Amino acid sequence: MESLENTKVRKQNENHNTIINCDNNYFGEGYFSVIAGPCAIEDMDMAITTAREIEKYGAVALRGSLYKPRTSPYSFQGIGLDGIEILDAIKSETNLLLESEILSTNHIQVLSDHVDLVRIGSRNMDNYELLKEAGKLDKPVILKRGISATLEEFLLAAEYVMDAGNEQVILCERGIRSFETYTRNTLDILAIPALKELTHLPVIVDPSHSSGKRSLVPSACKAALAAGADGLIIEVHPDPLNALSDGSQSIDLIEYRKLMEDIQKLVPLFNKEFLTTTVDA
Amino acid sequence: MESLENTKVRKQNENHNTIINCDNNYFGEGYFSVIAGPCAIEDMDMAITTAREIEKYGAVALRGSLYKPRTSPYSFQGIGLDGIEILDAIKSETNLLLESEILSTNHIQVLSDHVDLVRIGSRNMDNYELLKEAGKLDKPVILKRGISATLEEFLLAAEYVMDAGNEQVILCERGIRSFETYTRNTLDILAIPALKELTHLPVIVDPSHSSGKRSLVPSACKAALAAGADGLIIEVHPDPLNALSDGSQSIDLIEYRKLMEDIQKLVPLFNKEFLTTTVDA
Amino acid sequence: MESLENTKVRKQNENHNTIINCDNNYFGEGYFSVIAGPCAIEDMDMAITTAREIEKYGAVALRGSLYKPRTSPYSFQGIGLDGIEILDAIKSETNLLLESEILSTNHIQVLSDHVDLVRIGSRNMDNYELLKEAGKLDKPVILKRGISATLEEFLLAAEYVMDAGNEQVILCERGIRSFETYTRNTLDILAIPALKELTHLPVIVDPSHSSGKRSLVPSACKAALAAGADGLIIEVHPDPLNALSDGSQSIDLIEYRKLMEDIQKLVPLFNKEFLTTTVDA
Amino acid sequence: MESLENTKVRKQNENHNTIINCDNNYFGEGYFSVIAGPCAIEDMDMAITTAREIEKYGAVALRGSLYKPRTSPYSFQGIGLDGIEILDAIKSETNLLLESEILSTNHIQVLSDHVDLVRIGSRNMDNYELLKEAGKLDKPVILKRGISATLEEFLLAAEYVMDAGNEQVILCERGIRSFETYTRNTLDILAIPALKELTHLPVIVDPSHSSGKRSLVPSACKAALAAGADGLIIEVHPDPLNALSDGSQSIDLIEYRKLMEDIQKLVPLFNKEFLTTTVDA
Repeated sequence: MESLENTKVRKQNENHNTIINCDNNYFGEGYFSVIAGPCAIEDMDMAITTAREIEKYGAVALRGSLYKPRTSPYSFQGIGLDGIEILDAIKSETNLLLESEILSTNHIQVLSDHVDLVRIGSRNMDNYELLKEAGKLDKPVILKRGISATLEEFLLAAEYVMDAGNEQVILCERGIRSFETYTRNTLDILAIPALKELTHLPVIVDPSHSSGKRSLVPSACKAALAAGADGLIIEVHPDPLNALSDGSQSIDLIEYRKLMEDIQKLVPLFNKEFLTTTVDA
Repeated sequence: MESLENTKVRKQNENHNTIINCDNNYFGEGYFSVIAGPCAIEDMDMAITTAREIEKYGAVALRGSLYKPRTSPYSFQGIGLDGIEILDAIKSETNLLLESEILSTNHIQVLSDHVDLVRIGSRNMDNYELLKEAGKLDKPVILKRGISATLEEFLLAAEYVMDAGNEQVILCERGIRSFETYTRNTLDILAIPALKELTHLPVIVDPSHSSGKRSLVPSACKAALAAGADGLIIEVHPDPLNALSDGSQSIDLIEYRKLMEDIQKLVPLFNKEFLTTTVDA
Repeated sequence: MESLENTKVRKQNENHNTIINCDNNYFGEGYFSVIAGPCAIEDMDMAITTAREIEKYGAVALRGSLYKPRTSPYSFQGIGLDGIEILDAIKSETNLLLESEILSTNHIQVLSDHVDLVRIGSRNMDNYELLKEAGKLDKPVILKRGISATLEEFLLAAEYVMDAGNEQVILCERGIRSFETYTRNTLDILAIPALKELTHLPVIVDPSHSSGKRSLVPSACKAALAAGADGLIIEVHPDPLNALSDGSQSIDLIEYRKLMEDIQKLVPLFNKEFLTTTVDA
Repeated sequence: MESLENTKVRKQNENHNTIINCDNNYFGEGYFSVIAGPCAIEDMDMAITTAREIEKYGAVALRGSLYKPRTSPYSFQGIGLDGIEILDAIKSETNLLLESEILSTNHIQVLSDHVDLVRIGSRNMDNYELLKEAGKLDKPVILKRGISATLEEFLLAAEYVMDAGNEQVILCERGIRSFETYTRNTLDILAIPALKELTHLPVIVDPSHSSGKRSLVPSACKAALAAGADGLIIEVHPDPLNALSDGSQSIDLIEYRKLMEDIQKLVPLFNKEFLTTTVDA
């Protein structure tokens, strides 16, 4: 891809792979790292419950979103910076890393002080001002692919972050928009090996937004692993039917436990190590 | 569309149409208003030349972009706030309105003081923080449809601006992403009458980004008018072959003159009035 | 487009345009020719009524489909060859040309003896065996673009017909599949001027399948004319609410009359002549 | 899905799965069955070589296409019925099943007498006349998904075959058309579990057309298995660089051997049995 010449994002040879060390947890070749948690943090109780359970069943980080970009201004938008005390509580009660979405250059600094990884969502993949701000952080950035971004555009968005000084970028395939409506999006499974050909950066998959359906999440996770992904970011909710957002695509804690048991058996077959915090605890 | 119930953007009856008055130029039912100019302001000379010519051949506003969101961080990004003196010069030399893209909450205030209309580009249609800031302005906002936004998502993005207090929103169809690659995007011509069924807001069309090819721009403009659009935003460059961006889709001044002659003949057939600044001069 | 080199479909210079003479009615540059009628012929009465009215308000041909390819095997599939007597009756009662869809090499010969133009539908654009059979006919073939065919694939499908010996091909843009669901398909309006750049063949537009909504049909027709189309194929039904197929996208006879009045006023502005059978009657 | 009510294709309960017995080889739940071979049979030598090798490394059937639907009429179209002696030779020299594409109702009877499974390609998924003819055969039909067919349309196409009397239908996901061009198509990996929710029919995957790139084929195969597919149809050529068609997406015999070794290790983890002809030999 011509536009990738002389970029930082470009893979230079077959063995050029970046492994990102996030507080002794790893994202990249040889590891399989799971981030899990609710679509959005709703309150202290659900957050703590979810965090403890996912840690027990196997995860390296809690998905701890305080801000939710929503299509309608009248939908639940997240609890915002009020949730920071919840994030701090989880930090002290578990060994999980904390991961959270940043939406705006306004809260990027405050929020990033309380989390270990920041996420830039699909809707903001083209928000170059935000990418440049994330490029000034000294923390890994999970960059989700835009809903209709080509791989080239996706990689050049990552280049904005890297060019601004932050080389710790984790790419996340999360489904693209197609004509099919049975699934919420179309999981572009071959984006994983394609990205691995083009870039040295780690690649993880969001099985929840790509499928939009709880029943398809386990297949999406296994396919992602089989296609070469370095990890997952999964929506898990203790009570999906009553979730404030994305309930239909969130699995519950029992489903999560079963899924992690299955995944852990498969991971070694793909020459990867399944990471858990308990190893370090 | 259920999600539009109780929104400000929703059309309430067949005759409910908003006409936006921008310094005695109008956008909406009964008018056909053309914004034209280069993809990006490059320097004083080209800007002044272009402005004078487009005013002469028929236009209400200059497309005066100082910031250009670009796929690659290494492409020309616009001249930024250094261009404000150019905008001011055009203001004093012509009767054209000034229109310019805002990318970031950082420059929105400074820039909007020097222009008459602000534009939120396709890449930022989902940048809700920016939409909310635009909602605080007392100026019309041209909101471009995201490259793969449904009409519902497009209208709910407009709702973010309106809900934040600014009801002067002009919608802009600019082509959507499909599998076809002969054109840069696919001009969704039926989005125009569809939007007219759903909302009372004015709808204009960008024939340049939707086609990506200079040769198709005239057909795109005429089709837009015939489908019910209230205006156009056209890329015009005095020397497209040497443009710093988007040259292949920019028409030159001679093509612009010919196109406006054609358009002016057609406009009355569609019960609209072609607006020019010379009316006010 | 490299694949078009040395093809019969390719335009050789700016003035190379094919005008197809179908019994002294013309399809191509300088003319605007409307084919109208129900999605499918249902019975003698509705067919005769529709034919007489559309002829009165302006049309050169009746859309007289006896076969309907349907997504489900349990939907109405057309009345088949039983309808031939209806086609013959219309032939004797009006001056309209007859146009009908061919689905299979089995009925192509029988059916084509009773009609003036044969249509190959979108679903069969890639049915090369059918294209080759149509290539043996001595009648114009209306070839509809596949629902996700690129312009290149569309033109090469036409090449199958031409290469088999029949150079009377009329291309029909009928909407492509995109993510947008408000319209049934996405009318690719710029396909019209794009095809005009690439090929010398006439191009018409189907406003009914492209929009899927009666209310959008007039805008689609006007936009098609403005973008350079040489004609239309419109679904018209005397009682759309009770149509056996495609009722929601069919206009009624009153709407047809109004639409043709509007179109006839516009056609001269685009340097075309609106054709009617009454000229010959 | 409402349109599937009262269809033969619909899954009636979680345990309702059809296993198709093709001469003591099985397609369906509990088995993993690989069909492999060149895009098209080119000559006796390459066909015999390929057949022997793929049988040795693990396959149940040879992909033995005599007809190739091609976008351009001037591309290689297959060797046609002249290849029947080659198919017969392979039959006598190996224990492989023979699988071949049918394009036309003209050759369906002759061809099907010499093969064990017939394939209806993507371009013909909507060719209902062909589907109905395949419905009269007493052989399994592999039905490939149209390039932009929804799952609903895909299943209703299968219903055409079943309704015509043939209930031995194997569905094949082969990639859908999206905006992404790095891959030839977009492998809709979640179509596999989605189809398994909706229908009792077996589902296999074509990793070659979906990816369009040899390097991505192994990942596509493993992801298909992990997502629940019942088998694969893979393009394998002894000398891909000199293949008459689809060389860039064909793997060679050495790559095939390696891939089958990997797949055989994984299959048991997914509660399936990898089928080979040598079991029966």
